[in-house]
Amino acid sequence: MATPQIRSAVRVANRLPTERLAGALLNSPSFDHERHALRGLRRASTISENKNGRKKERVVILGSGWAGYGFARSLDPNKFERILISPRSYFVFTPLLAGTAVGTLEFRAVLEPVRRLGLDYFYQGWADDIDFARKTIRVEANISDDLASRTRLAMNRHPDGAGKGSMFDVEYDKLVIAVGSYSQTFGIEGVREHANFLRDIGDARKIRMKVLQSFEKASLPITTDEERKKLLHFAIVGGGPTGIEYAAELHDLVRDDLKKTYPSLMKFVSITVYDVAPKVLPMFDKKLADYAMDRFKREGIEVKTEHHLTRIRPDEDCEGCLKLKIKEYGDEEVGAGIVVWSTGLMQNPLVQKLEDKTFQMPSSSNSEMRLQRDAKTGGIVTDANLRVHMVPRAATTPGSLPDQGIKAAAAPLPDVYGIGDCTVISGLGLPATAQVASQQATHLAKRLNGGDVDAKPFRFRNWGTMTYLGSWTAIHQSSADELTGWMAWVLWRTAYLTRSMSIRNKLTVPYYWAISWIFGRDISRF
Amino acid sequence: MATPQIRSAVRVANRLPTERLAGALLNSPSFDHERHALRGLRRASTISENKNGRKKERVVILGSGWAGYGFARSLDPNKFERILISPRSYFVFTPLLAGTAVGTLEFRAVLEPVRRLGLDYFYQGWADDIDFARKTIRVEANISDDLASRTRLAMNRHPDGAGKGSMFDVEYDKLVIAVGSYSQTFGIEGVREHANFLRDIGDARKIRMKVLQSFEKASLPITTDEERKKLLHFAIVGGGPTGIEYAAELHDLVRDDLKKTYPSLMKFVSITVYDVAPKVLPMFDKKLADYAMDRFKREGIEVKTEHHLTRIRPDEDCEGCLKLKIKEYGDEEVGAGIVVWSTGLMQNPLVQKLEDKTFQMPSSSNSEMRLQRDAKTGGIVTDANLRVHMVPRAATTPGSLPDQGIKAAAAPLPDVYGIGDCTVISGLGLPATAQVASQQATHLAKRLNGGDVDAKPFRFRNWGTMTYLGSWTAIHQSSADELTGWMAWVLWRTAYLTRSMSIRNKLTVPYYWAISWIFGRDISRF
Repeated sequence: MATPQIRSAVRVANRLPTERLAGALLNSPSFDHERHALRGLRRASTISENKNGRKKERVVILGSGWAGYGFARSLDPNKFERILISPRSYFVFTPLLAGTAVGTLEFRAVLEPVRRLGLDYFYQGWADDIDFARKTIRVEANISDDLASRTRLAMNRHPDGAGKGSMFDVEYDKLVIAVGSYSQTFGIEGVREHANFLRDIGDARKIRMKVLQSFEKASLPITTDEERKKLLHFAIVGGGPTGIEYAAELHDLVRDDLKKTYPSLMKFVSITVYDVAPKVLPMFDKKLADYAMDRFKREGIEVKTEHHLTRIRPDEDCEGCLKLKIKEYGDEEVGAGIVVWSTGLMQNPLVQKLEDKTFQMPSSSNSEMRLQRDAKTGGIVTDANLRVHMVPRAATTPGSLPDQGIKAAAAPLPDVYGIGDCTVISGLGLPATAQVASQQATHLAKRLNGGDVDAKPFRFRNWGTMTYLGSWTAIHQSSADELTGWMAWVLWRTAYLTRSMSIRNKLTVPYYWAISWIFGRDISRF
Repeated sequence: MATPQIRSAVRVANRLPTERLAGALLNSPSFDHERHALRGLRRASTISENKNGRKKERVVILGSGWAGYGFARSLDPNKFERILISPRSYFVFTPLLAGTAVGTLEFRAVLEPVRRLGLDYFYQGWADDIDFARKTIRVEANISDDLASRTRLAMNRHPDGAGKGSMFDVEYDKLVIAVGSYSQTFGIEGVREHANFLRDIGDARKIRMKVLQSFEKASLPITTDEERKKLLHFAIVGGGPTGIEYAAELHDLVRDDLKKTYPSLMKFVSITVYDVAPKVLPMFDKKLADYAMDRFKREGIEVKTEHHLTRIRPDEDCEGCLKLKIKEYGDEEVGAGIVVWSTGLMQNPLVQKLEDKTFQMPSSSNSEMRLQRDAKTGGIVTDANLRVHMVPRAATTPGSLPDQGIKAAAAPLPDVYGIGDCTVISGLGLPATAQVASQQATHLAKRLNGGDVDAKPFRFRNWGTMTYLGSWTAIHQSSADELTGWMAWVLWRTAYLTRSMSIRNKLTVPYYWAISWIFGRDISRF
């Protein structure tokens, strides 16, 4: 694809000569020790400094999401040196992200700066490669927090994609891989360029701006009614909790607030959720899913199941509009002001890179090893103790061994653990959710603190699933109970707050809920 | 300069054919009626719609700053149809801007969306030209609220600068020009490209990100101490209240918050204020200015008076660093992580354009007229009743008439008023401050509401000047009293809140002050 190439070119052009050289040299995925040596001197000095006189074991954590951040905050600082590496300087409280995208909440109210954890070190950058034999991570620095870099993340940054920042290495005694996953675009034309994801705070801000700007554009005297209809059609692709919740929040925003601001535009507004599956919210019982659909029908939110989007492109005849090609509709395209994309997940490029490489562990004789890859999701396979699995290279070459054989040959990779979306626990089919990730994080931290990580396996407790449906209601489902309506909403609003939020945000979030409830949502376009 | 050309090219390329044509045609500053006709049809229809069945006089307000926003909120909606035209969708409460730039306050806490005023119409765009004879304003639409467009504003957008958005015309019965002013760069090399202004919320956000990113960059293991010193040198150019307040707030941020987060970096941090004048804070008595300087000295903030910055350029050997050339230092340049620019003001391009053109008023015989231009500031001259002055063209051609003659020939331009930074009241030498602008706004609105605008002249009441000096202290000076220290700080913090803020923000601002005071300032990089 062209975009990253260009971005790459630009960034390389901006970089200073030495780094440009380094960048160019280091650009291949493989890990070569001459190149390694290139920055070796600087690295050696800095790293050794860090290690001077430390008695504690160094635990390096990759990622600052539910898994990585959750683990870092639960790991005992008296027992371990804690180093976190992430391209983002903060943790995003994802359940409230849709709320920030419509101005119910202030963006920063759902952010927790990693620096507040008081870790021994935080390095902002991407883990670019890992040498398991030498227990070393190569890191690409990322100093920029601006939207661009976030977009780069949201848009499935590839190792060969955007140009590299400066590189340095970090050594570990224990490693926790919690790099999470990216949005799956299924290679559909125009999704990367023109759709909006809803996974990071930068995404939420862009969606918010785009929606409010569509209204502003629609209210210009030179805008035709036809253009208004297109601009104010908000399309959501994916009928999972995120898509449904955003549709609901957006509807609240329009009905409660924008109606007052743009009364004359209300007749042009429409919200549609598209999904390829025959039903939305697959994780809920039919009863609850139907309840949700009834609500949406009453609110006038259209849900189009078994619809396949095949292309998104800009509308030449309507500045700020998009054209959606949908298989079921043939050639006639649907106009929209924004497409919010929340379908499947795909693996992080680092995970792909790690799974593709072979390595030799000093211990394990000298047979070549590989990480064990989950056939279905492509995630890294761990055992119930969250230890990353390696298998002899032979075992992974097709047809060499039956599945049983692979399982038999699998062994834990010493001192390397994996949690969250990027991993799959062998045997258990757990979903890639915040709930699973944060439970794994707490478990692993407890076990390492207690020193019995190999003894006690992880067990998942289902806290149930909840989805906000707009106008103060939600559906909640767990093994224990099933709730709908107002009660579920109260649960939904309070449940999460008690977990993994700083006191600051435990105060700020309810403050904004109150303010939005009294004065309406914030509509300032910033 | 190249940048706008490129931006222009890009934007034109993105625009739809008809608009591209219009954009090209309309690109010259002069106002030509064939071109006018180009969008005539569409325009006519929309405008006449707006006017259908209205009995009220239409007042069109240009600008959403202290003058424009203040006027719009005080004008009686029962007596007038209120239309506001501004490229920004919000009013910025500037006295607290420096606070948002360091995370003491949330950005949106100092914004008031124009839409909340419930005006008859708000059109987001730039007034591109005015036809006083036909009482028509040509507007260039601006739908984008993103940083880029704000920067474009902050960086003195020129009529021939960045490519045009789509155009439309708005007619008025009464016109209030309150377009404000831009930052003065004195044509110093690199200021536009590399310095940060502090006039709009987008500027505050960029400064905030840059400062925090400099700390993040400095904390990378590959960054050398020499680079750290450069990255963490924060330069402020201009010793007026804005510059001094930002220096103070920044110092608070470093000492109270970043010290905890980056203890090892503190030895590299330095803050310097540069000014060409022999003393800073010229509007204060020597006593108070000296008090301020003593405080700064104790805090370790350097103030370098009589220093002339002559160039800013990026430092090739230090990513994210700048090199400042200062006349007094000869060839050796000063390294810095950021340069915050808050020196003088310059006139808005629209003002220049209006002052350059000649026009014929149907009434005034058929002699060619011009706006009266203030020789010193270049602002539009008004009388004490805030009516814009016009003079016969002849009177303005050099040497044709003595100043007395011009004054004699000057007459109010019917139904056109001017308030705020872009105007100068003939005779009175009032400063271009928020205080003057908001008092003018209230006066003019009251007079129009009362229908005695020609009878009662504007009188300025000096509420005094206040400047925050950090660590909870400020200096305050007015005809009545002089205050320093803690009392002044309390005054400073409360005084402004009571004026021109929505209840929402009257609650939110103190909330954030409390939160920042208890938990420290927000350091999340967003």
